[in-house]
Amino acid sequence: MSEYVTQPLHRALQRNPERPMTICGDRVRTVRESFDRIARLAAGLQKIGMKPGDRVGMLSLNSDRYIEYFFAVPWGGGALNPCNIRWSAAEVGYSLDDCDTQILIVDDKFTEMGIALRKASKSLQTMVYAGDGPVPEGMMSYEALIESAKPVADARRGGDELLGVFYTGGTTGFPKGVMISHRAFVASSVAVALEGVIPRDSVMLRATPMFHMADIAIGFCGMLMHATHVVVPAFSPVPVLETIARHRVNAALLVPTMIQMLVHHPEAAAHDASSLQSLVYGASPISEQTVVDLQKLWPHVRLSQAYGQTEMAPVVSLLGPEHHTEQGRAAGLLRSCGRAAACVEVRIVDAHGNEVPRGTVGEIAASGPNMMTGYWKKADQTKIALPGDGWLRTGDGAYMDERGFIFIVDRVNDMIVTGGENVFSAEVENALSAHPAVGMVAVIGIPSEEWGEAVHAIVVPKQGMTPAADELIAHCRKLIATYKCPKSVELRTELPLSGAGKILKATLREPYWKDQARRVA
Amino acid sequence: MSEYVTQPLHRALQRNPERPMTICGDRVRTVRESFDRIARLAAGLQKIGMKPGDRVGMLSLNSDRYIEYFFAVPWGGGALNPCNIRWSAAEVGYSLDDCDTQILIVDDKFTEMGIALRKASKSLQTMVYAGDGPVPEGMMSYEALIESAKPVADARRGGDELLGVFYTGGTTGFPKGVMISHRAFVASSVAVALEGVIPRDSVMLRATPMFHMADIAIGFCGMLMHATHVVVPAFSPVPVLETIARHRVNAALLVPTMIQMLVHHPEAAAHDASSLQSLVYGASPISEQTVVDLQKLWPHVRLSQAYGQTEMAPVVSLLGPEHHTEQGRAAGLLRSCGRAAACVEVRIVDAHGNEVPRGTVGEIAASGPNMMTGYWKKADQTKIALPGDGWLRTGDGAYMDERGFIFIVDRVNDMIVTGGENVFSAEVENALSAHPAVGMVAVIGIPSEEWGEAVHAIVVPKQGMTPAADELIAHCRKLIATYKCPKSVELRTELPLSGAGKILKATLREPYWKDQARRVA
Repeated sequence: MSEYVTQPLHRALQRNPERPMTICGDRVRTVRESFDRIARLAAGLQKIGMKPGDRVGMLSLNSDRYIEYFFAVPWGGGALNPCNIRWSAAEVGYSLDDCDTQILIVDDKFTEMGIALRKASKSLQTMVYAGDGPVPEGMMSYEALIESAKPVADARRGGDELLGVFYTGGTTGFPKGVMISHRAFVASSVAVALEGVIPRDSVMLRATPMFHMADIAIGFCGMLMHATHVVVPAFSPVPVLETIARHRVNAALLVPTMIQMLVHHPEAAAHDASSLQSLVYGASPISEQTVVDLQKLWPHVRLSQAYGQTEMAPVVSLLGPEHHTEQGRAAGLLRSCGRAAACVEVRIVDAHGNEVPRGTVGEIAASGPNMMTGYWKKADQTKIALPGDGWLRTGDGAYMDERGFIFIVDRVNDMIVTGGENVFSAEVENALSAHPAVGMVAVIGIPSEEWGEAVHAIVVPKQGMTPAADELIAHCRKLIATYKCPKSVELRTELPLSGAGKILKATLREPYWKDQARRVA
Repeated sequence: MSEYVTQPLHRALQRNPERPMTICGDRVRTVRESFDRIARLAAGLQKIGMKPGDRVGMLSLNSDRYIEYFFAVPWGGGALNPCNIRWSAAEVGYSLDDCDTQILIVDDKFTEMGIALRKASKSLQTMVYAGDGPVPEGMMSYEALIESAKPVADARRGGDELLGVFYTGGTTGFPKGVMISHRAFVASSVAVALEGVIPRDSVMLRATPMFHMADIAIGFCGMLMHATHVVVPAFSPVPVLETIARHRVNAALLVPTMIQMLVHHPEAAAHDASSLQSLVYGASPISEQTVVDLQKLWPHVRLSQAYGQTEMAPVVSLLGPEHHTEQGRAAGLLRSCGRAAACVEVRIVDAHGNEVPRGTVGEIAASGPNMMTGYWKKADQTKIALPGDGWLRTGDGAYMDERGFIFIVDRVNDMIVTGGENVFSAEVENALSAHPAVGMVAVIGIPSEEWGEAVHAIVVPKQGMTPAADELIAHCRKLIATYKCPKSVELRTELPLSGAGKILKATLREPYWKDQARRVA
């Protein structure tokens, strides 16, 4: 029998049925109870039309029911399609219709959007309400589905079969459905678990959004390690700090923006986080300062950075606790996203797929059993990401040092080619960020007859500040080469962000490039 | 790209090329050197006729070259066929001919047997000498093969492709070639590595025979964890103790007979083993007393037991350090072979494949991505082990407790059905072993008109002792039910043992059953 995601459930039931599997607010469910509910929910989903391979969506904040959904759909033979809760109804609707999802589960928070989606959607037929209030008209009750069904046997869907379609593409425009097989998903989680980031019989925090592959994978690591999952509906500093203290949480995944909120929160140090042993961060770039601040707040916690993308289910590389040290910092390793994870190979390649010398910037290519199958019905984009040589192109620009540490410099698409020189937007952004009036900043390439592309900066000033363009450019000249400095600067009040908190540079570039095609890296 | 065994080599070269990969006597080879030699040896093997999928044998004591062989054969596109060094020339010859192995690598110890094998074998065509002396006539030089070849690119054989044919069957008669895919092998090693038995950047002892799947798998765990492999040609207490002290070994696999030799060795405590962090034991049953003795000798070492068989590549279950405690001992867990390993499921089943209740003895069935593909050209025996329901039958009789711990009682084939009652030979053997005159003992079922099978004991007395049959039977009556006591006892000077040190009960039974068929469990 091959790899399949429901396997750790069977093992958990065999060895420790009375262990709490999920804690969600005051609701505690044991492994036995969860197992039973999952087997019933699978039956219920079959009853309302889920056939082998059919996608089932979930649009919800984090909850114990989200974890049940994750297992019940493959248990009943279906495939997952978790919806990005930060997207607009139009974007979610696109992703549901794109892969023909007919059943959608919503919680209280997304009931209204669910009703709107069903009206607009071509594929949606059945809505399931997984909230705690009265069941809205026209929806089925999640709890009634479970109560009325008899448990079915696990379909043991696995191996190369589709685990789910996971939509991504926040930073590059149109959402793409990443097809991930059971085997790929299990391989990725195993690679993370091999780093020892989740202690055995762990109590782990689930505070990152459960639609996101990073959370799904760390959650599955927890299942491999027989964890109890302590679920927080959505991240907020104080509730998370209270949850860690109350349940003696010992492992967690957090994204950089969450860590920033924690380290800057005045009450953070007042909460007992002595139980916390291991913290993984990732899913978007982090500043060295944030890591250092985190180490000051929780000096006893082993930190690991995970870098990846949905297309790698998601892990590519890891920077372990052994490098989160004073020595590691001095060696610049806190600016690295680590080295190839177990079962993954990484190369930095040029546009022809050839490996470039160490220290040279190119595109990160990764290979391993955790690679996606492809993009749902997007053969052209699949071919760009998987050109057929066994290596997935991540779209991230980076160099690798002599010991295999990877340093990301930019999205390949965000690199600016100006007067024949490559400029990494991240470098210019770092220079601008050092100016006292700059809050957020994005640097993009805009069309220029003279330079091909010109370096253009879009700045959100700190409150009450209005820095002059000249002043900002002059500031940059002190820090970086002249050809890298912005040719133009514009001030804005906000920047468009993706669900994962990344700045949507494609959106920023679009008005500039609508009349001409930009080179593709 | 899928799972393949040469992958950790590429990762090791990327991150730490100057790390010693193998230490064999005074010979130290770095990752870079090993990588280069493996790529050349692969080329050399291709040059002398190894084609994709071709089996290449190795008949040798442990050495760094054995590790090179393990990687070079799949690197060059071939499949492994490591030979059991405890077998007779006839048995080795059978296994080579059975899977049509044309190239055999031998060391100094096995040069003579190699010459004899080539004369007798139908398949063998090319002999490679991997010793340190002059190259024997008619053999090619292993070192010359490496020197004269240019490195080839890794064939990256992997996934469902054949990693090798691993012969087993010591205890059940005819050798069977277990076909293991790359995917199955990697899955098994990953499951062991997930238990944390090999520290990161470990220095590991390789003292168990390298032809054996247990050693091959733990060695690969080491590769996943970037270990340095300290190779001992063959186990012997003092050299092993010296090696641990000299190289500050921190992880090792040992089989119970080796551990017995160590704990009873007068010099054991005098050697510095403070570096040792983790010790895995397995591959044959161990007595609780031996575990306790080992804990006394090395109280600082985290002990893990691994249970498995070649057909599961090889891991089925693990008993971790958390149960090697006073509490675990009091709960009887030191008599358990642990719980299902990560990625593996275990059930105790009856003859129809149905799961039996906890506490009831049945056959251990296991399922996971690490299952063998089947036996080489033995469809009938494959069907017995893999009846097609996704569960491999191990042939081991056991029960499982309420928390999933597995307790092996006997080989299913060694169970005796006498007067309609099941008797576990192990239980009778334990009773007999408690008699002061009994050294080794084997209990088998022999034909009986009255009882179907009768319980028969074969005893090797301690030196200078000649216990009477009546006395031994009377001794048993004090300890176990009358129907379980031997009906007859015979004294011998030795018992036939398999390569792994197991008593060959099939050999013992054979003369009694040659005129009639014994029931098959």
